[in-house]
Amino acid sequence: MDGVYLGIDLGGTEIKAARFTRDGGREAEEQFGYDAQGGAEEIFAALLSAASNLTNRESLGGIGVAVAGVFDPEAGIIIDSPNIQSLNGFDLRSRVRGAFGDIPLSVMNDANAAALGEYFAGAGRGTASMCLLTLGTGIGSGFVLGGKIWQGTASVAAEAGHMCIQAGGPACHCGGQGCFEACVSGWALVRDAGEIARRNPSSAIAALPAITPAALSGLAAGEDKDALALWSEAGRMLGIGIANLMNLLNPECIVMVGGLAKAKEFFYEHARRAWEAQAFDRAHESTEVKFGTMGEWAGVRGAIQPLLEE
Amino acid sequence: MDGVYLGIDLGGTEIKAARFTRDGGREAEEQFGYDAQGGAEEIFAALLSAASNLTNRESLGGIGVAVAGVFDPEAGIIIDSPNIQSLNGFDLRSRVRGAFGDIPLSVMNDANAAALGEYFAGAGRGTASMCLLTLGTGIGSGFVLGGKIWQGTASVAAEAGHMCIQAGGPACHCGGQGCFEACVSGWALVRDAGEIARRNPSSAIAALPAITPAALSGLAAGEDKDALALWSEAGRMLGIGIANLMNLLNPECIVMVGGLAKAKEFFYEHARRAWEAQAFDRAHESTEVKFGTMGEWAGVRGAIQPLLEE
Repeated sequence: MDGVYLGIDLGGTEIKAARFTRDGGREAEEQFGYDAQGGAEEIFAALLSAASNLTNRESLGGIGVAVAGVFDPEAGIIIDSPNIQSLNGFDLRSRVRGAFGDIPLSVMNDANAAALGEYFAGAGRGTASMCLLTLGTGIGSGFVLGGKIWQGTASVAAEAGHMCIQAGGPACHCGGQGCFEACVSGWALVRDAGEIARRNPSSAIAALPAITPAALSGLAAGEDKDALALWSEAGRMLGIGIANLMNLLNPECIVMVGGLAKAKEFFYEHARRAWEAQAFDRAHESTEVKFGTMGEWAGVRGAIQPLLEE
Repeated sequence: MDGVYLGIDLGGTEIKAARFTRDGGREAEEQFGYDAQGGAEEIFAALLSAASNLTNRESLGGIGVAVAGVFDPEAGIIIDSPNIQSLNGFDLRSRVRGAFGDIPLSVMNDANAAALGEYFAGAGRGTASMCLLTLGTGIGSGFVLGGKIWQGTASVAAEAGHMCIQAGGPACHCGGQGCFEACVSGWALVRDAGEIARRNPSSAIAALPAITPAALSGLAAGEDKDALALWSEAGRMLGIGIANLMNLLNPECIVMVGGLAKAKEFFYEHARRAWEAQAFDRAHESTEVKFGTMGEWAGVRGAIQPLLEE
């Protein structure tokens, strides 16, 4: 198919969109904030505006959309999008068809899209299997096994953030306990830092105007002991989760992306020590752990991958 | 290819072998004890004797061998067999060739073989994906994804027994802590029961001539509170491990086999409650958990599967 391809990532606070050539080259981008809590029509209008800024209907070869949550590929309906509630049950397929005609549309989970992006155009290029971990407010993941996203039987596979690594451990938003993201994630760090601030009002953490991962990273850079201890414990738990992926899937690489990766100097060595202690030697020696290379554009690129393969 | 196929399972204490037709039908079996701690030549002689009792060289279409440990499919060499140490580095491929000529040979990890057996001829038949858990002295596993065993990049995938479910938890033989099998397995049950016996010498467990999972099952059948509590805790931890497989791989089914499954009346409900609490609803509602149907013959059947597909 001729024409250009549009990748759109509907995030929790902003829309990212880019125009790609048939060979996956990125030609132009758009990025703007929107109200993910707004109505479905409003959100769809924002999507249309991103699209019309980047291309016109005539030259459009297909649209790929990445969105948090679960999408039913057969019915073309978003089943459960926790961040963009108004899209639950929204018939994106027929609305896109209404706006652009009967062009190819692919909708997928945002973590799977980021995984495909890093796999085909980033840190995972040339490997046979890859697990992506998005280290942000929560932990997302996508598994590329033998060149394909592993979806699972009901499209809910690769929820590594909700793998239990500490039975009876901290409560998770999902209702479980001791989930990977309840032990290490942006929200888990903020929770544990808040606990320190409450216990010790004279701590540097208690003096922060707002407790955020970036602020904790700043304190760690100034060698604040509490902040360093938080990052080292997060690293240790991250390493345990990574060891589990090594022992379970033994992928050729594990790629970490997301905001927390910026603080890698404070957690990476602790993580490495933990996965070397917990995983089989043959597993951690054969699975390479690295950081993503596509920044925030991995999902936009991955979203169009199924269209390029058609 | 005409002829019959021989499946051989080299276990920790006995050899199981069977003759199969081209369509996977089992025609005859052999099963006898051997010394897995003996020399490689002795073990190979036992394997030859099982083979010659079941078939002759002329009608043999291929041999499939299942063995605990890691096998290098390209070099044809067993890399690391923890139970049968003398086979480490043993060149099974050229020895089989010497005895039977240049017939097809397939060697695979015993848990993967059991997974293929249940998948193609047992409880997993007709599904698109299956995780097998062998609940015995330890926990083994095999993942069939899209009809194929997922090996991983260095053939060490599917080590579910060594997925950490309790960071900082009980020490495991592998060197890790809080591994699935350190929390629930035959050896973990015996360890915890031994602890009860030491703490409370007047307990029914302390009066057992030998603490074994079967003996603990017997006590539970007599409503001994300690034994019931051990099985319910094992069930809870089993459910957490199962929930992890649901959230990570969302397979169409999870199949449990192995000696501990005999005690299912004492742990199954506790396991079910735990995976329903820990896994996403959509995950546990779409992944069916069941017990194997092939008994101890799953591995022997699975070992020949690659030969049938040639």
